[in-house]
Amino acid sequence: MNPLFAGLGTTIFEAMSARARATGAINLGQGFPDGRGPEDVLAEAARALLEDSNQYPPMAGTPALRQAVADHYRMHQGLDLEASEVIVTSGATEALAAAIFALVTPGDEVVMFQPLYDAYLPLVRRAGGIARLVRLEPPGWRITAAALAAVASDRTRLVLLNSPLNPTGTMIGPDELALIADFCIAHDAIAMCDEVWEHVVFDGAQHQSLMALPGMRERTVKIGSAGKIFSLTGWKVGWMCAAPVISSVLAKAHQFLTFTTPPNLQAAAAYGLGKDIGYFEGMRAGYQRSRDRLAGGLGALGYVVLPSAATYFLSLDLAASGVAMDDVTFANWLIEEAGVATIPVSAFYAADPVTSVVRLCFAKQDATLDSALERMAKRP
Amino acid sequence: MNPLFAGLGTTIFEAMSARARATGAINLGQGFPDGRGPEDVLAEAARALLEDSNQYPPMAGTPALRQAVADHYRMHQGLDLEASEVIVTSGATEALAAAIFALVTPGDEVVMFQPLYDAYLPLVRRAGGIARLVRLEPPGWRITAAALAAVASDRTRLVLLNSPLNPTGTMIGPDELALIADFCIAHDAIAMCDEVWEHVVFDGAQHQSLMALPGMRERTVKIGSAGKIFSLTGWKVGWMCAAPVISSVLAKAHQFLTFTTPPNLQAAAAYGLGKDIGYFEGMRAGYQRSRDRLAGGLGALGYVVLPSAATYFLSLDLAASGVAMDDVTFANWLIEEAGVATIPVSAFYAADPVTSVVRLCFAKQDATLDSALERMAKRP
Ligand SMILES: CSCCC(=O)C(=O)O
Ligand SMILES: CSCCC(=O)C(=O)O
Repeated sequence: MNPLFAGLGTTIFEAMSARARATGAINLGQGFPDGRGPEDVLAEAARALLEDSNQYPPMAGTPALRQAVADHYRMHQGLDLEASEVIVTSGATEALAAAIFALVTPGDEVVMFQPLYDAYLPLVRRAGGIARLVRLEPPGWRITAAALAAVASDRTRLVLLNSPLNPTGTMIGPDELALIADFCIAHDAIAMCDEVWEHVVFDGAQHQSLMALPGMRERTVKIGSAGKIFSLTGWKVGWMCAAPVISSVLAKAHQFLTFTTPPNLQAAAAYGLGKDIGYFEGMRAGYQRSRDRLAGGLGALGYVVLPSAATYFLSLDLAASGVAMDDVTFANWLIEEAGVATIPVSAFYAADPVTSVVRLCFAKQDATLDSALERMAKRP
Repeated sequence: MNPLFAGLGTTIFEAMSARARATGAINLGQGFPDGRGPEDVLAEAARALLEDSNQYPPMAGTPALRQAVADHYRMHQGLDLEASEVIVTSGATEALAAAIFALVTPGDEVVMFQPLYDAYLPLVRRAGGIARLVRLEPPGWRITAAALAAVASDRTRLVLLNSPLNPTGTMIGPDELALIADFCIAHDAIAMCDEVWEHVVFDGAQHQSLMALPGMRERTVKIGSAGKIFSLTGWKVGWMCAAPVISSVLAKAHQFLTFTTPPNLQAAAAYGLGKDIGYFEGMRAGYQRSRDRLAGGLGALGYVVLPSAATYFLSLDLAASGVAMDDVTFANWLIEEAGVATIPVSAFYAADPVTSVVRLCFAKQDATLDSALERMAKRP
């Protein structure tokens, strides 16, 4: 058996969700909304399931979804993508895996940023890559030129980035994106940019794709997720977009990882991506209200909440909140003693963790957030 | 970019389907049925989509589907599996990828059999494994002790097998399964047994799982597919079953490849696996009639058809049929001149190919088969 996988634990998201199910805790850990998702998108999925073919669609995705992704990014982000540059995957996790297995050659160095989504490091290592980790810190979690310079080498081949950034709920600013672009160009590196949170941004902010920066069009793999865009996380419809010389290789990794993705869910995602701007604004406004409800409630309980500009998440600064526990101890206390599941942010570090921050998911109904706040009135 | 993927072509199935779509050829290449699939299974998928949660289900699969797979194999194959030993995947392709990445350590030798399903070799190589290929030959495609002995070494760690065997349409006989079991035990090797065709067997035959052989329960990964069982190939719901010491490692590879699989399709697969024996017998009888219709028609046109005991496929022996072309030339002639897409079996060999056999998919409506036969009345 491969020692890399044999030595790994279960993902923190799954472990916390399982503990929440077992103990009846309110689950603000794993990032998923508890609403139904848009009714018209669900209806289109049901229609396609019952009326259209359920046999293998084309391997790289249905023509309709590939075109819809390209059109969507033209309209919402000013990108100029062809449908042929879009490869549909079984969720963004599969897109990450396919991109990493396709682009990493053993010995390649891959620059990544901690806190780090938990799939990144095992995939890069399993692909034979060598991780070069930039450590980000609260409260700003900023990327600096000095930190990038410190991880550069003549074996730098790839940069793997999550923008906006989970678990911090921050957007990578234009200055930081420019630093990353300069770095990629200087080292002739490819960027794999996991932009699954691109639509979940608040306070009127506009997501900027790394691919849109000068010099990055031909060297960026942009990864997206219908599950995140439509609040249907179980659907597992994602995609990766890249210039032909890269996407043709991505398609080959994809063909041996899952080959293809259920056609009715692809049809519904294609339909949904064409929804008018009102849908996306309404979705954002809803999550922003939830963010403010949870942040306000936590503030009233004496917790210090770090700013959340994007994603389903906000985080607590434990030290500033007067909690004399590290994040893991506090998260364990909270699930056991108060009945609320969260995610300790140290779980997103492979080394030298930040241990003073806990992440909470606010993509929940008001009643759920209010019950969680009631429970959290009990403090350690 | 990884040279292994960068150097690969598109899968032959996808390439032939694309040519069939482009030229209007009747597609007897890629293996998918053209029926709707069972209406009650479709209805359950629609019900779960509209009534149940579409958020992340548990990573290893819904409890209902894991239990249904275990129960199904108890009833149909006499296996004694626990639900906890079943990991649900996004199709059998993902199960293969997860098993290979989980179980192969760079330098391990993996015994495989040619003709070889096209995902096997790139996955084993990308995982760092060294392929040791046993070459099977028409008309019997039999596995022998001598052939196994010739590929054994002290680095043999895994055996990867497709049983029943695509593209040949043969069942691996009890004598051959016993040879493989002895081989695995003697070399302390794990078997990855891709049994996606387990229900598509003809003439009253009964599939025997490699896992059921003495000594194999603890060293076999059994891979299955709802898409194949329910004639819904686009659904991409599969699973891998193994004893806990293995399945716990498989789960970790799975969590980083796709993480999870759409819950409504899992619900429908769970429902379907509980259907009574009549459904499975009816499905087999239907495909057997189609097999006989195509085989009979081809025979009447002077083609020699090799026996098909399982799968959606039969094959033509070109030399015996008096066709003075190799398989690739004939398949190209057939799609261009007669308008029928097939798969040349040499595409399933990595080295030293058999070049005298072409595979046809008979899982099609009568009218489609009859039209293909009309077109094939034109012979080269
Ligand atoms: C794939 S489960 C994790 C979901 C998520 O994005 C998160 O909780 O961070
Ligand atoms: C995953 S496409 C190939 C389908 C199939 O099993 C075949 O045609 O052999």
